[in-house]
Order: sequence, then structure tokens, then C-alpha cells
Amino acid sequence: ALTSTCAIAYWMFGMSVFDAINHSMTTIATGGFSTKSGSIGAFNSSGIDYVACLFMLLASFPILIYLQVYRGKFLDLFKDKQVTTFLLIILVSSFSVIFYLWLYDIKTASTAIQHGLFNVISIITGTGYSTDNYNLWGAFPIYLLFFGMFVGGCAGSTTCGIKVFRFQILFETTRNQIKKVLHPHGVFISHYNNKKLSDDVVTSVMSFFFVFILSFIVITLLLSTTQLDFVTSLSAAATSLANVGPGLGSTIGPEGNFYGIPLEAKWILILAMLIGRLELFTVLVLIMPQFWKK
Amino acid sequence: ALTSTCAIAYWMFGMSVFDAINHSMTTIATGGFSTKSGSIGAFNSSGIDYVACLFMLLASFPILIYLQVYRGKFLDLFKDKQVTTFLLIILVSSFSVIFYLWLYDIKTASTAIQHGLFNVISIITGTGYSTDNYNLWGAFPIYLLFFGMFVGGCAGSTTCGIKVFRFQILFETTRNQIKKVLHPHGVFISHYNNKKLSDDVVTSVMSFFFVFILSFIVITLLLSTTQLDFVTSLSAAATSLANVGPGLGSTIGPEGNFYGIPLEAKWILILAMLIGRLELFTVLVLIMPQFWKK
Repeated sequence: ALTSTCAIAYWMFGMSVFDAINHSMTTIATGGFSTKSGSIGAFNSSGIDYVACLFMLLASFPILIYLQVYRGKFLDLFKDKQVTTFLLIILVSSFSVIFYLWLYDIKTASTAIQHGLFNVISIITGTGYSTDNYNLWGAFPIYLLFFGMFVGGCAGSTTCGIKVFRFQILFETTRNQIKKVLHPHGVFISHYNNKKLSDDVVTSVMSFFFVFILSFIVITLLLSTTQLDFVTSLSAAATSLANVGPGLGSTIGPEGNFYGIPLEAKWILILAMLIGRLELFTVLVLIMPQFWKK
Repeated sequence: ALTSTCAIAYWMFGMSVFDAINHSMTTIATGGFSTKSGSIGAFNSSGIDYVACLFMLLASFPILIYLQVYRGKFLDLFKDKQVTTFLLIILVSSFSVIFYLWLYDIKTASTAIQHGLFNVISIITGTGYSTDNYNLWGAFPIYLLFFGMFVGGCAGSTTCGIKVFRFQILFETTRNQIKKVLHPHGVFISHYNNKKLSDDVVTSVMSFFFVFILSFIVITLLLSTTQLDFVTSLSAAATSLANVGPGLGSTIGPEGNFYGIPLEAKWILILAMLIGRLELFTVLVLIMPQFWKK
């Protein structure tokens, strides 16, 4: 249903039927593949850009929540703490990028809003479309997009990355740790969406975070042996592990692609994409001797 | 005792009494301050370099372990899992850097060993001396030194950074998480130095790791608003938070210093150094409303 609606919307805003169907499929799958080398930017239409923004966001919500919406409980969408936190992250990130682009006269107000919003949503949700060469946006937006790659969307969506619910659990646990500094004998129970968090869930989320960062470091180190530069290695590792698409810098940035990087680097990134998509532990089991004993 | 021995050793290898006393104090404190602009490299003596290597390592061990050594139990030093893991990290890192420097003909074998070993130990322990401009060592050694900044020494030493025991607990917990994927109903107890790890310890270590990474990201984003380049911002954030000393790149690398960076960036780094030295939570308590209510 989402894909069909998205396709119709793209078509109404001027895409051909073929392009509309293709882009709707890669929008709702947060895949980011385009029929044009210039990605969504090739259509040069603010209407299409905003349609893509809307559907990239809808595709990053927990898909099961649409059952509630279908049952007429539309407001349930905004009662879910993961959805509201996700929207807050998008809002704060895109606002600060738009403000920066406008403040330093890098873009006019309207193009700052259009390109800022689009590319922030595309990178954070891990879709990977682009409408502009954000390498030219200055230091702050580039850094924010780099770290944004790790975020992803909500659990239960097609997005990759660390995902919003994990950040919420990490924040809630950390908040309780800080409270413990103040009240060393206090007992603090971590909650998520009004439910008590078990130690098991907390440990598994925190291990995931550790393994994600560690995998990122190992992949970057492996890439560095293929003589890629600092920005390319770091962003290639991040964009592959989080299944985003474009990286930073002139080689693998939004105006480039991975064609020109060494063959060994491609093999490393193939592995990174698989590990990221399978959410790490499924792959790491393979390196445990116990797995092969069975 | 360590500082005096170190001072005598420096003096025996050719330093003046003044230099020997000064450098011994900043070696055992893993501080890294030197009387020369060229740091330890200015003495141009492999003897002094290796003395510094030895005492930087000794200063990164848990200080209390020397009580055991004093009581004649010298081998206890190598029974402590933190010490052996720390030495393993140093060994693998410096060997891979030395091998890379030799393989790509960047240095001759003997200078590769001397400078590779020295700078890896100096950066990982967070001392911050330098003997060579490692910015010219090629991609892999630079990346390894960058990520090495986060490591630090053992708990109970004067080093900063995440510290070895936290990595051990993170690894042990993650290993048990992977085992759970294989045996979903299994019960796995995490151990450290032959003692059972409580959930409280695991959660506090994992929160520390999350807050460390988050602080690093926030500081990098703040630095990026002062127009510093990618490598300088990332490495300045890392080197300040982990109290190392030099960063990467031409501005703040081993041949440069922080003189030329913008004033606002200096304030941000002052804050980063304090947060890192006070191990995060002590400072983060200040942002909790509960702290100010009391």
C-alpha cells in the first residue's frame, strides 16, 4: 500500500510511470537505488523532493504501527516514543543543517530547506538518495551527515544502522547511571515505552552498540591498508555498515561512486554491508568455535 | 620510586639532570610535557627512546600491583589479566605499524622498530611524547594511532581514555551475547580476573563506553562549527577527551601544536580535557536537575 501510494505521488509530481514505480520501490525499502546517475536530484523538482522526504520518513516508522493507523487509531503513531524520538532527531538535525546553510550564505533559504531536509532524511534513514553535493556544504553539515549515518530509523522498519530504540535504551540506562552517582544506594529501574527494561535487553543493546563501533573501527583499519584517504575510509566503513549508500569526499560522495576504489576495498565493503544488514551477531556467531562443533 | 629510577635512567643515557628530572615526572604521570619543542625526538637518542618506552609501559600498569612486586611476587605482574591484555594490545599494534613501515619502505628496519614502538606506546598510553612526524607514515599507521588514542592504559594507573579493563568487560559481555544466539536458553556468567561480573558493573562499563563515544561525537560536531578540517576536528576531540596530547594532521600533529586553532575551539577542548580526565560521569552529574535541587 505504501509503495503504490508513493508511486502515484511521484507520478503526479512529474515522474514517468517507469521512474515512479522504480523510485517508489527503493524509497519504501529505504534502498536508495535510482534510475538516474544524479539520483532524485536529476528530476530537479522540489515537489518530487518533498514526496520522497515524506515517504522516506513513513518507511522508517515501525511498519506494524500502520495496523493501528488502519484500525482508525491514527494518533497511536505519535504515542509511540520511538516514532516521536525519531522525528525529533530528524527535526533537530535538519534544522541545524538548514540554519547553517542559510547563516553562512551557502544556499538561499528555500533551497537550504529543500536540500537540507532531503539529504538529512536520506542519510539518517539510510535511504541514500541525494539531490546535491553536500561535500560543498562546509564542515558542520558534513560531520552531522557522517555521524547521522549511524542512526538509521525505527525498529520494525527496513532501515539499517544502530536504530532509534537502541539509542533510547542507551540513554535511559546512562541517565540511571548518572543518577547512581548522586544516590549511590538508590535503585533505579530503566523503562522503555512505559515497560520495565530487563537487564538482558539492556546488555544485548549495549553489546550491539559496542560491536557496531568495533566493526566500524576494524573495517576502517582494513580499508586503510588499501591506501584510501582518511575521509573516504571512515565514511565508506560507516555508509556500508549502516547500508546508507553514498559516503563523503570526492571519490564516494554523492557526486561519485565506488567504481574507482581498489578491488580489495570492495571486498571489505561487501563484507561490511552483509554484517550491517544481518545486524552483526548473526555473522559473528560464525567466528565462535562452538558454532562449528555442532 | 618509579620517577627516581626513570630520572636516573634518562640521565645515564645522556640527558642533563634538569631534563632527566622533568621528563621522568611527565613519563610516570603519562603527561607527555617536554622541555623541548621537538619532544623526546629532540634528544635524537635511541637509548633515551627505549628508556621512555619502558617507563611509559610501567606507568600504565595498575600502580598497586607494584606492592605485590615489592613483596617479591614479581610474577603476579603477568598473572593480572589486565596487564597481559594491555601488553598484547601494545605488541600487536606496534608490530603491525613496524611491519607496515618496513613493508612500504617508509623506514629502515631499525628506525621502524624505534619510532614505531615509541609512538605507538606514547599514543596508546596517552603520554603524548613524539619522536617522529607520524603524519608521513601512510594511511594504516595514522588510523591505528587515531583509534589507539581511545585505549589508554590499565585501571589504577595515571592514564586516561577508555582503559583496558573496560574493553575486557565489553568483550566478555559481547562474547556471552554471541553465545546466546547459539544457545538461546543458555545461562552465561561473565567473568573478569576469575571473579563473577555483576550486572551493575557491566551496565556501568557499557554506559561509560556509550557516553565516551557520544561525548566524542558532540565535541567533534562543536569543533566543526569553528571551521576546523575533518582530520583536525576528529583527532582534536579524541586527543583531548583521552588526554593524549598531539593529534593528527599538519595543525595539531606531532610537528605542530594547538596555538593556531580558533579561540572557541580552545574553549571546547578545555571542556573536553576536563570531562575526559574526570571520567565523564562526575561532570555529567552537573547537567542533571536532581543535582541542583539538593
